[in-house]
Amino acid sequence: MTGIEFSISATDGAARRGRLTLAHGTVETPAFMPVGTAGTVKAMTPEGVAATGAEIILGNTYHLMLRPGAGRLATLGGLHQFMNWPKPILTDSGGYQVFSLAGRRTLSENGVLFRSHLDGAEHNLTPERSIEIQRLIGSDIAMVLDECTGWPVTEDEARTSMELSMRWAARSKEAYEPRAGYGLFGIVQGSVFPNLRRESAETLQKTGFDGYAVGGLAVGEGQAQMFDVLDFTVPHLPADRPHYLMGVGKPADIVGAVARGIDMFDCVLPTRSGRTAQAFVTGGTLNLRNARHADDMSPLDATCDCPVCAQYGRAYLHHLIKAGEMLAGMLLTTHNLHYYQSLMKNLRDAIAGGTLAEFRTKFDREQQAGPEDGHHGDH
Amino acid sequence: MTGIEFSISATDGAARRGRLTLAHGTVETPAFMPVGTAGTVKAMTPEGVAATGAEIILGNTYHLMLRPGAGRLATLGGLHQFMNWPKPILTDSGGYQVFSLAGRRTLSENGVLFRSHLDGAEHNLTPERSIEIQRLIGSDIAMVLDECTGWPVTEDEARTSMELSMRWAARSKEAYEPRAGYGLFGIVQGSVFPNLRRESAETLQKTGFDGYAVGGLAVGEGQAQMFDVLDFTVPHLPADRPHYLMGVGKPADIVGAVARGIDMFDCVLPTRSGRTAQAFVTGGTLNLRNARHADDMSPLDATCDCPVCAQYGRAYLHHLIKAGEMLAGMLLTTHNLHYYQSLMKNLRDAIAGGTLAEFRTKFDREQQAGPEDGHHGDH
Repeated sequence: MTGIEFSISATDGAARRGRLTLAHGTVETPAFMPVGTAGTVKAMTPEGVAATGAEIILGNTYHLMLRPGAGRLATLGGLHQFMNWPKPILTDSGGYQVFSLAGRRTLSENGVLFRSHLDGAEHNLTPERSIEIQRLIGSDIAMVLDECTGWPVTEDEARTSMELSMRWAARSKEAYEPRAGYGLFGIVQGSVFPNLRRESAETLQKTGFDGYAVGGLAVGEGQAQMFDVLDFTVPHLPADRPHYLMGVGKPADIVGAVARGIDMFDCVLPTRSGRTAQAFVTGGTLNLRNARHADDMSPLDATCDCPVCAQYGRAYLHHLIKAGEMLAGMLLTTHNLHYYQSLMKNLRDAIAGGTLAEFRTKFDREQQAGPEDGHHGDH
Repeated sequence: MTGIEFSISATDGAARRGRLTLAHGTVETPAFMPVGTAGTVKAMTPEGVAATGAEIILGNTYHLMLRPGAGRLATLGGLHQFMNWPKPILTDSGGYQVFSLAGRRTLSENGVLFRSHLDGAEHNLTPERSIEIQRLIGSDIAMVLDECTGWPVTEDEARTSMELSMRWAARSKEAYEPRAGYGLFGIVQGSVFPNLRRESAETLQKTGFDGYAVGGLAVGEGQAQMFDVLDFTVPHLPADRPHYLMGVGKPADIVGAVARGIDMFDCVLPTRSGRTAQAFVTGGTLNLRNARHADDMSPLDATCDCPVCAQYGRAYLHHLIKAGEMLAGMLLTTHNLHYYQSLMKNLRDAIAGGTLAEFRTKFDREQQAGPEDGHHGDH
């Protein structure tokens, strides 16, 4: 496939410094994609998201297909125009959310029949329908529909699930109409089993995709096992294509995954934390709900160059949280997305400069020195 | 008193085009003050508020004295620094909110004893304490504590209430320490009774204040009666001092009050409406929750030059509201504050140009032509 360009300008160990060229712009990698579930990165304007340094966001097919609806989005000019985000968008397949609808969905070879959480209406999500919806949304990068393998899982169950995902990936590719600037990513499954991951990676490459995601992680397996999976999976991905670790993660997860050859990430952590009083700072997180911030006019992070740290003290953010004010979520989300984008920029610079090992040593030391309120929060 | 400068550059009938010079900047009048109850204009950054054209905001003494607390605010550098709003701030006296605490407050000659709605703690709000709190907050303009006269009310009750407010006003003046750039406003009471309003205005002038507010309106008396009160009250206010109509109001209220010689306004309507799906547009309001907006990519108001109208369609705003997204309130509040500030600018230009009558004719015609969803909402 030749939909999207991916060029690698430097490597440092397994880590890669690259650039994606998509229909709506370029994306420097390794890249973090803020999550814009329902056509908005929560609590942020699109200008605010771009100002943090984000060059691509993720949209959720499940939410968008139900509301405002894929057909309506297409009629209104696509998601970019609808939400006033002119830069690249990646959409997931919708599968992850559908599989979360316990008791409201039925899996078959054909796809997943489910009832909407909004109005109970029945929908059928197949590989072909997911591709069609993502085309109507207008996303630069579409993902294949896959089955979300459970956790914990036996090897037999993981194989059955992976093999279904591989058949769906082939159908997705078949249904996808290539266009310049647009791409389709396959998703490697196989849980924590090296032979399954390798088989999945090889199967996908025979079909051929614009990029390759590692799916089924960040489901409770823990960071050590996640890194193990990357160690034995990434080497089987084509080196000249982007590698995307879905739904990850904490800053330390990202640093470790970049060092293992991952180029793209998405996670709700910086945005969700921003709405629940958590700030990402050097070495960990701050819980701004804590009363000890009530008289502290120092910024969230003295080393941060974001507009929130330049203009507001912890005491004010604490006050806004106690008062239940929307501005608390707005400012903390802004800061957290800045933190994540700054982390990505520092990782890119370190790879380009061949200093990733030093960067990781410094990062780990900061994590151990610790933040005041604890280490980076869980998902 | 000589705390603040007020210069009038033009008049048109009773309407005045002026400029207030305060410690934190100048304010072109007639001016609308967005309400920043708890140290934030809800759903807005301070930069966003300033970008709408607002030059002064209102802070609520009641909320701020309870949280974060007046002493803390003073220690942290005052409200301007705390909330990152370097422009002028006017604070109310706290009385209005305290009098709303039915069953939780006791009125005496000395002041009002009340229990906090947050933790039940007992507080004593006296004229002197209100002045002290407003000094700790650091507001450019402080208001005297007054009793909120009920509605409906007999003339005897209104007189008793007004006379108490006049005694409190004198005590407030006594407690107030004049400083260059800072001012204290008296508040005319007397409900709908011309003789009481005149007596109140004359009593206040004998004491002498930097500005004069008309209080006790927008309490259910209706627009016609409010305009009647202004007709027989404003002529008794000193012509060379700013006139402030508290808690008003709808766009048509403001237009009529400006024509009657009012220079300053505050109201929660544009901000509260912004969080409840209402947009102020030429001729009336739109309810963006209405399904008929779901496929409409036109802006809220084709004649509006605000960033929301430049970048977003009604369909998107409708979608955000249905999805319960914070961005809905952020964008609608931005638009509504732009609408109000644009209205004030147009009024100022009309007074300066001697064309206020034409402006009012056009405004009334637009109101009659009507918006799609109804006339301007009630308070």
